[in-house]
Amino acid sequence: MIRISIDAMGGDFGPEVIVPSLAKVLVRRPDVRFVVFGKESTTLPVLKRFPEIERVSEFVHCEISVRMDDKPSRALRHGRWKSSMWKSIEAVKAGDADVCVSAGNTGALMAMSKFCLRPMAKIERPAIAAIWPTMKGESIVLDVGATIGADAQQLIDFSILGSAMARALFGIERPVVGLLNVGVEEIKGQEEVREAGRLLRNAVMPTMEYHGFVEGDDLGKGTVDVVVTEGFSGNIALKTAEGTVRQIAGYLREAMDRTVMARIGYLFAKGAFDRLREKMDVRKANGGVFLGLNGIVVKSHGGTDQEGFAAAVELGYDMARNKLLAKIANDIERFHGQHVGGRDEGTAGTGKSDDEHRGGVD
Amino acid sequence: MIRISIDAMGGDFGPEVIVPSLAKVLVRRPDVRFVVFGKESTTLPVLKRFPEIERVSEFVHCEISVRMDDKPSRALRHGRWKSSMWKSIEAVKAGDADVCVSAGNTGALMAMSKFCLRPMAKIERPAIAAIWPTMKGESIVLDVGATIGADAQQLIDFSILGSAMARALFGIERPVVGLLNVGVEEIKGQEEVREAGRLLRNAVMPTMEYHGFVEGDDLGKGTVDVVVTEGFSGNIALKTAEGTVRQIAGYLREAMDRTVMARIGYLFAKGAFDRLREKMDVRKANGGVFLGLNGIVVKSHGGTDQEGFAAAVELGYDMARNKLLAKIANDIERFHGQHVGGRDEGTAGTGKSDDEHRGGVD
Repeated sequence: MIRISIDAMGGDFGPEVIVPSLAKVLVRRPDVRFVVFGKESTTLPVLKRFPEIERVSEFVHCEISVRMDDKPSRALRHGRWKSSMWKSIEAVKAGDADVCVSAGNTGALMAMSKFCLRPMAKIERPAIAAIWPTMKGESIVLDVGATIGADAQQLIDFSILGSAMARALFGIERPVVGLLNVGVEEIKGQEEVREAGRLLRNAVMPTMEYHGFVEGDDLGKGTVDVVVTEGFSGNIALKTAEGTVRQIAGYLREAMDRTVMARIGYLFAKGAFDRLREKMDVRKANGGVFLGLNGIVVKSHGGTDQEGFAAAVELGYDMARNKLLAKIANDIERFHGQHVGGRDEGTAGTGKSDDEHRGGVD
Repeated sequence: MIRISIDAMGGDFGPEVIVPSLAKVLVRRPDVRFVVFGKESTTLPVLKRFPEIERVSEFVHCEISVRMDDKPSRALRHGRWKSSMWKSIEAVKAGDADVCVSAGNTGALMAMSKFCLRPMAKIERPAIAAIWPTMKGESIVLDVGATIGADAQQLIDFSILGSAMARALFGIERPVVGLLNVGVEEIKGQEEVREAGRLLRNAVMPTMEYHGFVEGDDLGKGTVDVVVTEGFSGNIALKTAEGTVRQIAGYLREAMDRTVMARIGYLFAKGAFDRLREKMDVRKANGGVFLGLNGIVVKSHGGTDQEGFAAAVELGYDMARNKLLAKIANDIERFHGQHVGGRDEGTAGTGKSDDEHRGGVD
């Protein structure tokens, strides 16, 4: 049984989209249980329409909802302790849920998640990880926008977080990790990326294999399982790819609608087009995962539909099922700081932090 | 008449691809003239096969060729003064050509261009500008990899360079400029991007209109005419988009080849697919433009074919025809430094630089 806390008020459409999507999840993951946080007047009527969901869910009324345009500071001020967003995160902290899913606004969700769950011991900054469809299958890309800039140690932390996620989701024993960089000979990238590359090259980590630098076009190729970068370029890469997919989908629609011959051809090839549409469907890769906190939070796109939100919930389910948090805690325990100051430095003098950290993994 | 210097030895295929491509250019731009730099033994036999090109070209033998894997330092050491790459750049400096086109390696070409042409007065760093196909047409994106990182003043310089290029290429009187940034509420981007945004917002520039921040998915939408960013994220955005196009082209081929129905559909819709292929053709947007030097250099993809190299040459032709360099010089003269230290600071005390700078524009 995997228990998932749901912020029913998040996203552009709230409970009307979120509750029905849970029914889809239940079909595909029958042992799922939900704790649904939302406003009674708008959430309960939808829940009533899905008795199968009501049966496996606990509903908790929350008077306050964080708005999609709330600034993180405002969301914290007004929504802490009592909003559906806060309560759904808090359920993970309290051990009432294994993972939290919200389609609420990213800034507020990250601010509340940091405040409530706090970063894991030894991890300075959380990251947002995205699932990236590739020619070979899927990769994980992080950070796609939690923070801007990252030093070498933080990039190594992202490698640890991302490779643990790849093991939990893809079932690969030793995921291949690459550092995103530019290929122009003369410059070869930021100093912190080069430094992280040197450290990863020398590190001995049985839970990941360091590939070296990768470039923007390696993302779609699926050259590596995990692509590590700081949040500014990661966010730009993610949105550029999404934009390019939409752009080509637009070209395709336009081309197929221009002539009678093309429209006839479209009818014959409709099955193929449906398959292509599925491949290009950005909803299927919906869900940014907050990593590096004492609990897993999945952020769904705000404008997503039922299928998209269901994909985000199932992502959370799969990670919880495969004990992502324990994997991360274990890897950090073993490898964090190994590269910078040697193994000893990494484990010495951190008694208190270790306790905190173990506390978060239970 | 527009005179273009050609490095015939650049790229993966050298004169075998480059010389025939000039024939395509000549058909579409009949008043073009070439100065072709290359090794006699390999270039002249190909030139002989195209008498129409021979008629409008001057050929200059160069013993040395810069290799595609030469480091910039090595290329400068071995190829300065005498390689086909150097000579073709030097032709622009000497006034023998209006623009230079090479498919040689980016690092070496940029190092030689900087060394030979030098940055324009008041411009600290050159940028590489790319033409980006969008839903609405085309945009200009810079810097896509000349240097990593940029302060606020450099981002403003890029805005000036890019908007001049948009005026020269697209014939827009007042191109709309956006700064590439991330959309996460909490962080809102690097300090230098925010600072550049504030300065551009307050500047009064009749030759550009400042739009504000744009995100990665605005690139494909064509939200603005010119997207400004520093070279690391610009390079990653460009290569991510190219990779995504190839990825979807792969999906499409695979989908259309899977069933008999799809193959029949493909035959009916072949015209539409050809149109789509043309839209998705990365060759057509081939050509990074080095801006901010006392002369325009176009870098073609090394692995390109005849059509791709021809596109790069025609890009160079069009910019020279529309007096890009004079437009840039004029804008810098009027606006550089206006934002940082006021109008006076921008034009005072730069007598010598101004002379140098004007010298480069003739």
